[in-house]
Amino acid sequence: MNKLLVLRILSVLTWITAIILLIPAGVALIYREEAAFLAFIQVAVPTGIIGALLFWLTRKSGITLSNHDGFLVVTLSWITVAALGALPFFLTGAIPNYTDAFFETMSGFTTTGATILTDIEGLPRSLLFWRSFTHWLGGMGIIVLTVAIFPLLGFKGLQLVRAEAPGPSVDKLTHKITHSAKILWLLYIGLSAIETVLLMVAGMNLFDALTHTFGTMATGGFSPRNASVAAYNSVAIDIIITVFMLLAGVNFVLYYSVITGRFRTVLRDTELKVYLGIFAAATAVTTVALHGETYRSWGESLRYASFQTASILTTTGYATADYLYWPGAAMAVLFLLMFVGGCAGSTGGGIKVVRLTALFKQGINEMSYLLHPRGVFSPHMNRTPLKKTMLLGITGFFFLYFLLLLLTTLVVSFSGESLLTSFSTALATLGNIGPGFDTIGPTGNYAAFPRGTKWFLSAIMLIGRLEVFTVLILFTPRYWRK
Amino acid sequence: MNKLLVLRILSVLTWITAIILLIPAGVALIYREEAAFLAFIQVAVPTGIIGALLFWLTRKSGITLSNHDGFLVVTLSWITVAALGALPFFLTGAIPNYTDAFFETMSGFTTTGATILTDIEGLPRSLLFWRSFTHWLGGMGIIVLTVAIFPLLGFKGLQLVRAEAPGPSVDKLTHKITHSAKILWLLYIGLSAIETVLLMVAGMNLFDALTHTFGTMATGGFSPRNASVAAYNSVAIDIIITVFMLLAGVNFVLYYSVITGRFRTVLRDTELKVYLGIFAAATAVTTVALHGETYRSWGESLRYASFQTASILTTTGYATADYLYWPGAAMAVLFLLMFVGGCAGSTGGGIKVVRLTALFKQGINEMSYLLHPRGVFSPHMNRTPLKKTMLLGITGFFFLYFLLLLLTTLVVSFSGESLLTSFSTALATLGNIGPGFDTIGPTGNYAAFPRGTKWFLSAIMLIGRLEVFTVLILFTPRYWRK
Ligand SMILES: [K+]
Ligand SMILES: [K+]
Repeated sequence: MNKLLVLRILSVLTWITAIILLIPAGVALIYREEAAFLAFIQVAVPTGIIGALLFWLTRKSGITLSNHDGFLVVTLSWITVAALGALPFFLTGAIPNYTDAFFETMSGFTTTGATILTDIEGLPRSLLFWRSFTHWLGGMGIIVLTVAIFPLLGFKGLQLVRAEAPGPSVDKLTHKITHSAKILWLLYIGLSAIETVLLMVAGMNLFDALTHTFGTMATGGFSPRNASVAAYNSVAIDIIITVFMLLAGVNFVLYYSVITGRFRTVLRDTELKVYLGIFAAATAVTTVALHGETYRSWGESLRYASFQTASILTTTGYATADYLYWPGAAMAVLFLLMFVGGCAGSTGGGIKVVRLTALFKQGINEMSYLLHPRGVFSPHMNRTPLKKTMLLGITGFFFLYFLLLLLTTLVVSFSGESLLTSFSTALATLGNIGPGFDTIGPTGNYAAFPRGTKWFLSAIMLIGRLEVFTVLILFTPRYWRK
Repeated sequence: MNKLLVLRILSVLTWITAIILLIPAGVALIYREEAAFLAFIQVAVPTGIIGALLFWLTRKSGITLSNHDGFLVVTLSWITVAALGALPFFLTGAIPNYTDAFFETMSGFTTTGATILTDIEGLPRSLLFWRSFTHWLGGMGIIVLTVAIFPLLGFKGLQLVRAEAPGPSVDKLTHKITHSAKILWLLYIGLSAIETVLLMVAGMNLFDALTHTFGTMATGGFSPRNASVAAYNSVAIDIIITVFMLLAGVNFVLYYSVITGRFRTVLRDTELKVYLGIFAAATAVTTVALHGETYRSWGESLRYASFQTASILTTTGYATADYLYWPGAAMAVLFLLMFVGGCAGSTGGGIKVVRLTALFKQGINEMSYLLHPRGVFSPHMNRTPLKKTMLLGITGFFFLYFLLLLLTTLVVSFSGESLLTSFSTALATLGNIGPGFDTIGPTGNYAAFPRGTKWFLSAIMLIGRLEVFTVLILFTPRYWRK
């Protein structure tokens, strides 16, 4: 293991964090929030110095990072930024204990949006800005990870990248991986700018428009308002956010295809079709279930149904309605969507549509074999056969994900929570969704969990965000051998 | 398709059912239950005549049944016996509508044990005997299916048989498949006899001992008592049933190994180790969770914990305690066990230990690949590498099972049930467990579900019992092509 280089990469991340912290410091200046400004500076300055010092100390590290070390670097990166990013919350006393501050920040950087805050609006504006900004940075991180870092480090085996292979592959997109990451970043920034403008046109001020854009584009879900998006009670805002949540859940590589005029690639994309199909079906069922029960008109039913299904499907977690009071069938639809997630190459979490599609096709394929034992069948996606090794990789991911869900349920249940709270907490944290059912419903929060549970859930959010394998591999004896 | 032969096999089943119905008719005579006696005879006589007539009419069918037709025969067999077996309940008025009678009988033959009865003890003894007897016959059917019929029909692709291959395979057991089925039947009957005697020694009368043995050995769970096994409040009975539930959940082929002195095969069996490990771990956690909360002493905690974990793990569904009032962690353990099930080649349902073990090993294997992309790794079981095609078969099964769970949750939720009721109903019916949480807890029942839901759940119990593929394959267009 090239320990020096691992440290060097973390040092770069540390001083980048220091520089980024100057942005919320600037926001604190604007709003004349002195205590918050001092806290941001108090963290930024020593962080910057330590980062620079570490960068200088590790100058002889060399530049070759092995596949092997990559898993550790990626995992430690997220832990480092969460640990540093939590400090302003803690130092200002806005979140009085570090466990909660760390949980909230990890929830931000993993784009989970699970909160321990009971009165969000009580926080200084600059801290709320920073809270939402962690989402946006985390989403950016995920895009680099999936499109640039994973292939760069040779993470060919990593499921997400593998799962993308049948689609417009990273290689096809552009031969220079860093180039493609830049393009996708520009797309991410461009879409964010458009959403911010649209939200302002719909009546939000710049602060609210920015923070909600951060939460939308990263499929994060933190809102600076206690009532989430319901606070605005605006049809226009609901529609804009619904559309942009859905856009954020799409494989970003497809946007590049659109820009370069390859519409055929987009129209043929199996994952996109299934993703939109699931959204349409879920919205239809929910609308029917809500109509006449929760809302009088079809229009209202459709409005709230489409927002909530888009929010859960894309793993964003914004709310315009407390679905805990919805009819059983509408709740069940949202519960089912918690097992899905966004598309691969999006900022969405969860199991992801591409994996579920591949597994479904494998299930059907198996029945063809049963009928014709000597036949040769292969599930296809985007007109390409799915390789056995790829399917087995998805199988491994899916089963470990399922196992982590059960383990998390058990751990949460030990804090005395109901079965539904425990299981939906598992779904909401591992899938980076945020809200769930019962205690952690859309108007609930994670405040009441014991300290140990919060640390455990922070780890689960990270494991889910880093596609399970990246973190779990560090716990295998094989990783530390030799 | 050899339609004549399909009909002929069903005709054999029909007159066998007619003959078997004479047994509860005899029980009705003993207890002088005239109405019930008449009902059994009213069903048995025309059924026997129709069966014999059909057998004669199909005499020119030939004797070659294709792999293809086997799926239909097996599915129709279960439907036929359930449809006929439901008639005595319906004709006596003990279960006044046919939907409920069919549900109860399908629940019996699939060894699910989900009941629509609200006052079980109100039924005539002969009907209660018949109700429990359907379990025992269903269990016998499953043993023939897994050990004799599936391989005989060339169901090589069928997951369960495939999953058994790494263990002491059916072929190794004995070259004559029908012979091995007979041996396993004798084992099933022998174990049943031992349990009956032990239960009588522990204080049960012959009727109670027999019916509870039927429910135990088939991992069925129907009890002739409203309070299930709790009605006896006997430590000895609890221990006997706990042990025999566990025995019923073991691969029956292993008993043959014991008899023929091949202890090594048994001791090396990966599935058995995992199965017992899960039971031990689940019991330990539950005992700790119960101690000081629900029960004062460690002994009591262990007694109720071990019974309930064995009951759910083996998918039996007997109860000595209402676990809905247990602490969250104890409930969560039972919830987790609902995803497991018995061993392959047992009468237990669920996903089954062998499949989960294989999938877990595949998950670990995938991480080895990530670390050493050019290495060659293969998950092993019973010291034999697991083939890729086998793992993909298990993957197909696991995903379709997961999808059916979600679909069933949605369907049940439409009847206005809570999310926990809906999801646990899915687990309890597809996994052939019987009880679940909320409305369908250990002291609850399935009475309140709407008619359509009951038919749907009857289908789900059958799909689960026949290892998913057998039934689902009939719904693929490929099955009916040509
Ligand atoms: K989220
Ligand atoms: K059962």
